[in-house]
Amino acid sequence: MTNYFSSDFKLGVLGGGQLGRMLLAETQKFDIYTAILDSSPEAPCAHICEEFHLGDLMNFDDVYNFGKRVDVLTIEIEHVNIAALYKLEEEGLKIYPQPKVIETIQHKGRQKDFFVNHNIPTSPHHRFESKDSLVNAFEQELFQLPFVWKSAQFGYDGTGVKIVKTQGDIQQLEDTDCIVEQLIPFKNELAVIVARNMDGDVKTYPVVEMEFHPEANQVEYVICPARIDEKVALLARETALKVAEAFKHVGLLAVEMFQTSDDRILVNEIAPRTHNSGHYSIEASYTNQFEQHLRTVLNLPLGNTDSKLAGIMVNLVGEEGYTGNVCYKNIESILKIEGVTPHIYGKKITKPFRKMGHVTVVNKDISKARAIAQQVKETIRVISNE
Amino acid sequence: MTNYFSSDFKLGVLGGGQLGRMLLAETQKFDIYTAILDSSPEAPCAHICEEFHLGDLMNFDDVYNFGKRVDVLTIEIEHVNIAALYKLEEEGLKIYPQPKVIETIQHKGRQKDFFVNHNIPTSPHHRFESKDSLVNAFEQELFQLPFVWKSAQFGYDGTGVKIVKTQGDIQQLEDTDCIVEQLIPFKNELAVIVARNMDGDVKTYPVVEMEFHPEANQVEYVICPARIDEKVALLARETALKVAEAFKHVGLLAVEMFQTSDDRILVNEIAPRTHNSGHYSIEASYTNQFEQHLRTVLNLPLGNTDSKLAGIMVNLVGEEGYTGNVCYKNIESILKIEGVTPHIYGKKITKPFRKMGHVTVVNKDISKARAIAQQVKETIRVISNE
Repeated sequence: MTNYFSSDFKLGVLGGGQLGRMLLAETQKFDIYTAILDSSPEAPCAHICEEFHLGDLMNFDDVYNFGKRVDVLTIEIEHVNIAALYKLEEEGLKIYPQPKVIETIQHKGRQKDFFVNHNIPTSPHHRFESKDSLVNAFEQELFQLPFVWKSAQFGYDGTGVKIVKTQGDIQQLEDTDCIVEQLIPFKNELAVIVARNMDGDVKTYPVVEMEFHPEANQVEYVICPARIDEKVALLARETALKVAEAFKHVGLLAVEMFQTSDDRILVNEIAPRTHNSGHYSIEASYTNQFEQHLRTVLNLPLGNTDSKLAGIMVNLVGEEGYTGNVCYKNIESILKIEGVTPHIYGKKITKPFRKMGHVTVVNKDISKARAIAQQVKETIRVISNE
Repeated sequence: MTNYFSSDFKLGVLGGGQLGRMLLAETQKFDIYTAILDSSPEAPCAHICEEFHLGDLMNFDDVYNFGKRVDVLTIEIEHVNIAALYKLEEEGLKIYPQPKVIETIQHKGRQKDFFVNHNIPTSPHHRFESKDSLVNAFEQELFQLPFVWKSAQFGYDGTGVKIVKTQGDIQQLEDTDCIVEQLIPFKNELAVIVARNMDGDVKTYPVVEMEFHPEANQVEYVICPARIDEKVALLARETALKVAEAFKHVGLLAVEMFQTSDDRILVNEIAPRTHNSGHYSIEASYTNQFEQHLRTVLNLPLGNTDSKLAGIMVNLVGEEGYTGNVCYKNIESILKIEGVTPHIYGKKITKPFRKMGHVTVVNKDISKARAIAQQVKETIRVISNE
């Protein structure tokens, strides 16, 4: 077994945003030397890692050259140059999750096809390479209004996703590689994080429930455990496990799902990494998702995924109408509430809907936690101070 | 209220060891820009803080010049140049804990006198400025064998403390400023951490019990909560609170105490900072001691000091007979046990009894936690790999 701790071993991470930053808290706890690649000198990780490299994650040379400097390579974002990863893998570098998995997941059309090919329940879909071919298919009544449109690549946090209700909405769509999905009426949006290491040891975190902002298509609260039937929870965990096993995935895999009105589970989207839906775990779980990610990519034994307490995460996004140097208004007020922990991602500039941080609420009683989460949401404001 | 979060505000910390390193995890969580002063370019904080300065903590100019660069100054070790702190304070810098408090505590003779002057229960003692004056007093039967000898300054982790049993032992003592204490038979060694901010808001953490290694004078396990009577626990918390209030201390104050055979509480020693006896709080408490320290020195509301679960800390010290590049043998075995979290301090070189890290065990059941802690202690080995 490699000696990772306080040694010459070097972990490389593609991406230096907030997920990388929270991962650094764990590499520091274990004293694992970590190098980060990101295109911004002001990235949240830039000043707090052992080694920071400037470079474009989509550029072959930048990713390849960075990979040559490290012993194991992982990601905090899936939008990375795949050709460079394949070349590095061929040359013997350990890359987790595997390039093949990242390649499949970074394209929503390929992702959906993978689900279908592996009998993973998901909503019916069609793939199109342009707006013209989408319009043609619509005119031939291959699918009906209303439907969900998703850009095949580079969408995140609700960008690249549209609910299309009218012919007029169709005209507004971007001309790009995309998928169209049937609009499924659902009771709940759920997520399960799966951890799997090289030895094939695998564990799932409890099912979480995602409450969305009624207007913006962004998650407002993540609630753990989801307030659903035990039977549905079990099915959700089994489904997530099935996805991870189908990929023989190494790393964390976040599986977002719909609970339909008739209590079926449909996989919506997956992410091959630590995930917003797992942030609650820092305060609420025995092993948080960032430590668990480290354990998976270093092939260490997996930690306990159970919770110490109920946990709710509140996303902190920039308020509409404010762009500039960030100010977290009333943060002192929320610090007065017991069981409340703010996480500030280190972004100096706020913009409307930009993810600037999150707040975790833990409590023995989940309904108390939910009430406090609402209080937090209504109190703190992410604005600019000019 | 100052805007500390993602702003131009700069926190300065004197000392860049493991306590500083664990504090950095919290400044990063809150995105509070932090500068560190330490004399070693290989200090545990050196590569993971926003700003690192090389300098001698006992040197006036090094401390003074560092202080001029920051907005609030705090410490992770009390052995710092006090004259520089007084000068900075006079010039308007906010320093927590206050220089006056640090000055009193950094000298064990002054510390004991302070307890006596403030009616804080402590074991009887004598102060001596040299070995000669100690020997004279002994010959005049001012105190008897056996007794406890403590160097007045710069002792830590059991260094600078001796149990003196024979005349021969007296001859071995160092010729230095010291104190002599009556040897008190005690049932338990306990500790309480007090958090107090500028507004005078104050909270105590639960009482912990310290189990010492039978030979080395080092803490082996810290157990929270202490397995003692509720009445004794209450008295210990009240006593700790009394010490903090007597100092009008701002920051964390760790109060080490003896529980005597007749259930009195005697204050042994205090430290004006985060403390080894509070490391369990990272995994077990609602608000860990490092976040709490930040809250106190920034005059933010104090967090909940209650525990989520029982917590036990196991110190990881270098094994006798090994000096060189560190290797944490069998760390994979302990990672298999549920509720076990290693913290590795980032010191490349191990030496006998050097504090290299700690392991926290959390469990709903304190006796299970204690059994696991023993298993951890018996499994992991801190050795060199050559």
